[in-house]
Amino acid sequence: MKDKQFLMIPGPTPVPERALLAMAKHPMGHRSSEFSAVIKQVYQDLKWLFQTQEDVFIYTSSGTGAMEAAIFNLVNPGDKVLSLVIGNFSERWAKIAEMRGADVEKINFDWGQAVDPAVLRERLDQDINKEIKFVTLIHNETSTGVTNDLQTLAKIIREHGAISLVDGVTSVGAIPVKMDEWGIDVLVSGSQKGFMIPPGLAFLACGKKAWQAYENCKNPSFYFNFGAYKKSVAEYTTPYTPNVSLIIALKETLDMMKEEALEGIYNRHAGLAKRMRAGIRSMGLELFVEDDAIASKVITAIYPPDGISVPDIRKTLNRDFDIVVANGQSKLKDKIFRMGHLGFVSEKDVITALGSLQASLEKLGCTCKSGCLCK
Amino acid sequence: MKDKQFLMIPGPTPVPERALLAMAKHPMGHRSSEFSAVIKQVYQDLKWLFQTQEDVFIYTSSGTGAMEAAIFNLVNPGDKVLSLVIGNFSERWAKIAEMRGADVEKINFDWGQAVDPAVLRERLDQDINKEIKFVTLIHNETSTGVTNDLQTLAKIIREHGAISLVDGVTSVGAIPVKMDEWGIDVLVSGSQKGFMIPPGLAFLACGKKAWQAYENCKNPSFYFNFGAYKKSVAEYTTPYTPNVSLIIALKETLDMMKEEALEGIYNRHAGLAKRMRAGIRSMGLELFVEDDAIASKVITAIYPPDGISVPDIRKTLNRDFDIVVANGQSKLKDKIFRMGHLGFVSEKDVITALGSLQASLEKLGCTCKSGCLCK
Repeated sequence: MKDKQFLMIPGPTPVPERALLAMAKHPMGHRSSEFSAVIKQVYQDLKWLFQTQEDVFIYTSSGTGAMEAAIFNLVNPGDKVLSLVIGNFSERWAKIAEMRGADVEKINFDWGQAVDPAVLRERLDQDINKEIKFVTLIHNETSTGVTNDLQTLAKIIREHGAISLVDGVTSVGAIPVKMDEWGIDVLVSGSQKGFMIPPGLAFLACGKKAWQAYENCKNPSFYFNFGAYKKSVAEYTTPYTPNVSLIIALKETLDMMKEEALEGIYNRHAGLAKRMRAGIRSMGLELFVEDDAIASKVITAIYPPDGISVPDIRKTLNRDFDIVVANGQSKLKDKIFRMGHLGFVSEKDVITALGSLQASLEKLGCTCKSGCLCK
Repeated sequence: MKDKQFLMIPGPTPVPERALLAMAKHPMGHRSSEFSAVIKQVYQDLKWLFQTQEDVFIYTSSGTGAMEAAIFNLVNPGDKVLSLVIGNFSERWAKIAEMRGADVEKINFDWGQAVDPAVLRERLDQDINKEIKFVTLIHNETSTGVTNDLQTLAKIIREHGAISLVDGVTSVGAIPVKMDEWGIDVLVSGSQKGFMIPPGLAFLACGKKAWQAYENCKNPSFYFNFGAYKKSVAEYTTPYTPNVSLIIALKETLDMMKEEALEGIYNRHAGLAKRMRAGIRSMGLELFVEDDAIASKVITAIYPPDGISVPDIRKTLNRDFDIVVANGQSKLKDKIFRMGHLGFVSEKDVITALGSLQASLEKLGCTCKSGCLCK
């Protein structure tokens, strides 16, 4: 019997029923007063979630679209960009900036590690002529399950004077991100994560300092154009036909988030990670990120026990328990598997996943070399 | 009583129930074999709909995103672009190309008229040094309800040697567009039109000649990158997390379209326009585009009768009959109103709309100066 499939990947994530039902409604006209009222509320709630006074633009795109928006509205060819790379997604910033023709310098940290603030400070201190105009970084690196100390890193960047471009795709709406208080210049996110709706919308907030860079940008993007979107936010609309269905679903999930309150959301995710990590350890499995201080609250990367392969674990979880977990990416493929606990996920879901993982390992004939509880 | 709202705007358009129900399903993982099987079928069916052997890329964006994709993957700053403008949407090509830093020359035709092929031929004949690299044009101009003779225009452009960029947002899946046979180089469209699903996906097919321009493009788009999307089509996936819900809904509507067959779809839309125009004329109202040969099959622009305003007509239709029609755009605002008959629309729907329009005019106290049947 195939019952309800449960996604424990880092996106798409599970969607609450009231959002799914909103998706099934006939689309409304995007220039109607009815839709204006919806998006007005959504714009207001997004500022609350981003903890900012700046406008939050809603793009009809994947999260990567909002990253493109940041680069193609701010960076001119030849501009010096420093990219802090701790995994696959933080590296994407560098790839987009290179595509734009920027002069990109990467600082690579070992996968599974966070950015070392001291290394960043040292590099920026060397930049006495202030040649570095932008620093790109990620808050939560989904490919490894590591969370950077964004507050500290943003402060170092602000003291230098560069503009920070932050990928908050898997952090906003799940772990604390205080855009204004922490001095983040540009913050982007995506809908299929903490926002609890399907993929198809991306979000971007741009601070005043970054706005000056937009005004000096030659040949910016048209589709993602900051100026056009800012004008539209003020008029409770969007420049082009948006994904109205997803925006209406988002209104539902933002209502749910307001009921839970920011502290509730953050505490829930912290609790999910704690339970997941304790469960994995008690099974005798090894965590990819041992250090609790940098371990992600929304995704946990796990080594398979000796003698059992990542594909077999994923296949068994999917076939016998209808639970979908992610493989490692790039050089970590088949080396680790990743279990997401992001968005519409309860403690019960984590317990279910842990129990199903243990039962899967038993079925796979775990030899207990690494101490699993199969006997 | 507010019963089912009926959209007769040119997008979003009505969505069939089986597509709406597909939208309400829990999203599936975009890297799963289950989703691969869905998108493989969708990619194949899109080639059928675009009447091309080229791959059709699926972008998670508005239709304008696919226009940006064309310009930002093909055009270098300084390239000479000729834009054929007959209304608001055909002008968008010129705006995007200008944003890209191209050298844009516009040929403006009166709103309500189609591109005169003789004017295009004359301009291209003058271009003996082949300085014009791209010609942008629209198939169906939604702002005025005019359809260009795309087959003839594409032939003239091909004979000159420039690359044609065609906005087929409101034509693909509604009126005949034969990409390969007509020699169209780049053809774009959007989901909330003939495709019968909500907004949020855009489509682009790129011919071999245009592909050479992509290979010579400096600093192309990353998010809309042709190379990344072409690789993904071959692997039955997408480069970034797509809007899985809409792609699953699209599979449903493509199945419906295959059942109806291309000739059925084209004949239905031709019949809807014929009935709409006959009804408007029999009411004594004046069509904005009198010439049946260039009048759009998917949207009809109508002058209000003397003494009754466009806002009053729209308000009455909406309030009393739950029918949403569009105002004119830009310089045609409040001068005309537009009734869409695009996508999931039947002959009965057009009859309903005509009857409701007539009843609305009666309620608004039409004085019959223009011959309406209110008495």
